[in-house]
Amino acid sequence: MLKTAIIGAGLMGSAMAWPLSDNHNDVRLIGTHLDGDVIRMCKEKNFHPRLGRQLPENVKTYFFSEIDEALKGCEIIVSGVNSLGIGWMTEQLPGRLAPGQMVVGITKGLEAGADGSVNIFPRILKAALPDSIRERVEFAAIGGPCIAGELAGRRPSCVMLGAESMGVAKKLADIFRTSYYFPTPTDDLVGLEIGVALKNAYTLAVGMAYGILEKEGGIDRAGASMHNLAAALFAQGCGEIRFILKLLGSTEGFASSLPGAGDLYVTSMGGRTVRFGRLLGMGKSFGEARGIMAQDTLECIEILKSMSRLLPAWRRHDLIGDQDLPLMKALIDTVVEGRSLNLPLGEFF
Amino acid sequence: MLKTAIIGAGLMGSAMAWPLSDNHNDVRLIGTHLDGDVIRMCKEKNFHPRLGRQLPENVKTYFFSEIDEALKGCEIIVSGVNSLGIGWMTEQLPGRLAPGQMVVGITKGLEAGADGSVNIFPRILKAALPDSIRERVEFAAIGGPCIAGELAGRRPSCVMLGAESMGVAKKLADIFRTSYYFPTPTDDLVGLEIGVALKNAYTLAVGMAYGILEKEGGIDRAGASMHNLAAALFAQGCGEIRFILKLLGSTEGFASSLPGAGDLYVTSMGGRTVRFGRLLGMGKSFGEARGIMAQDTLECIEILKSMSRLLPAWRRHDLIGDQDLPLMKALIDTVVEGRSLNLPLGEFF
Repeated sequence: MLKTAIIGAGLMGSAMAWPLSDNHNDVRLIGTHLDGDVIRMCKEKNFHPRLGRQLPENVKTYFFSEIDEALKGCEIIVSGVNSLGIGWMTEQLPGRLAPGQMVVGITKGLEAGADGSVNIFPRILKAALPDSIRERVEFAAIGGPCIAGELAGRRPSCVMLGAESMGVAKKLADIFRTSYYFPTPTDDLVGLEIGVALKNAYTLAVGMAYGILEKEGGIDRAGASMHNLAAALFAQGCGEIRFILKLLGSTEGFASSLPGAGDLYVTSMGGRTVRFGRLLGMGKSFGEARGIMAQDTLECIEILKSMSRLLPAWRRHDLIGDQDLPLMKALIDTVVEGRSLNLPLGEFF
Repeated sequence: MLKTAIIGAGLMGSAMAWPLSDNHNDVRLIGTHLDGDVIRMCKEKNFHPRLGRQLPENVKTYFFSEIDEALKGCEIIVSGVNSLGIGWMTEQLPGRLAPGQMVVGITKGLEAGADGSVNIFPRILKAALPDSIRERVEFAAIGGPCIAGELAGRRPSCVMLGAESMGVAKKLADIFRTSYYFPTPTDDLVGLEIGVALKNAYTLAVGMAYGILEKEGGIDRAGASMHNLAAALFAQGCGEIRFILKLLGSTEGFASSLPGAGDLYVTSMGGRTVRFGRLLGMGKSFGEARGIMAQDTLECIEILKSMSRLLPAWRRHDLIGDQDLPLMKALIDTVVEGRSLNLPLGEFF
């Protein structure tokens, strides 16, 4: 029985409480400064309003003001914020860490260096640590096809757990593994993070297919939808993920595994990113679509912004040619540059 | 303007008439001995009853009894039967071919040699030719994510066109390419055929996830479906396709492209194979499920039978170990051996 904490009471962070609890760990779910209402409901009714479920056993909830008490003695800390919260986490977490702790992130995203380098959140968090403990805390990440509500419903889910060393990855995978949750350990932490970030961008493309369908009047009288187009965008997305993984020296096989094809499948089955893609496919400009979904966190936008900085740098360093990554370029054109949507199918494959 | 023929008036064969017609070719759609009613309706009303559409221009339809007249002078012949019709095609076509013709197959499947070799339909057809013309007819194949009704509806579709030489593949791709139909040429004909055949088997697994969902009472009160499980099976399927492509010396990148991930996506969006998988996931035995879908052609069954012969041969030759291809083994266990379904998630990835 370990002492474990989850910082952030959003969907995915909170869902991590289920496998941790089912493995008989002590789980402390700590809200951020934005999660006050959620934690209040958890404390009052033992019910998580976002997940719509009773909390499992062994889970204690904490307001952000109680974080120092909650983190005391914890061996595992889940960084459970989304990409908009990473800056906040970088301020709040490092000063509170102690040697020997392990931090597991669930945040999808990547940061672009001006030189074309890619930085991932576990390393960004690590860099923010005081020198005295930087090498004495392990940073890992979980990614792959996992809808939070299904994990909390104890539906079977296979994910990947990445760390800088296989030893740490295996140790953490054992801690999280249950009869319904299967984390595969990997030491290609960078590849994992790149895969799960990029799939968010390409999910947008799959959604666009169904928006184009709507614009063209929907399913026709003979019953034809736009699955062929969605599949072409899906495949081109997987292929571009593979290309980028290879370019960055990561495991290209991830493209046809959990962080690529698998995660792209699950996000394509519904949710914000697909809805946003659908609006763009219907012919809305980026601004119009963003306005319609003003309340939604859309991580794909930040990821495409990062990619819009990386692509020119990669081109300058002759890492990619003008013909490479046509779908990524089309997504950047629409989402970052605000141009009207143009999917260059003839340039694919 | 070329003279082209399609043998077989099923969905996919018939849909090939659209790009051929739109490219101003003379198209002769020839029914098999089983397509009499379809051809009659086509002749009477210029309406294809299976596709539910008016035939495009330049398409003339022929009963099987008129095949010799129809094939006269044709430069391109599409072999438009499904895998159950391949034996028939092997009897009917070879004696009717003339030097210089090109035959393009659309049939998904593969044949297993006792020694672990894989044979593909274009080569099986070619082997059946008289010696005098065997090297003077080209055999090619089209595969990838393409629902026939969408192609006939001129919805955007990206496919792969494989031949033994890149020159032939490119020539044929140019003949079929339209503003909505994008064939990418490849000279890895074997890899293409293996990818599109295997995806049929793995589509079954994706369908199973939704059958298991039904068995467990459907979407739960908090809204949890089984997309995580479906995604894990999808990813494991892509990964196993990659493994098999690599094993056979084919393009492993196809696993994250049109013949793998893309085709798996489109078949997972509905259709017979998914329905059959759903029945198995619900706990029906193979026999019960086959009985319920007795009227349906299920190519996945033949493909799994071929794989059930290949796996032991590959094991004997030390090409695979006991840990490899756990999902394929589970599918064979259920569909070929008739055992109850057991998806070994812990052995994946």
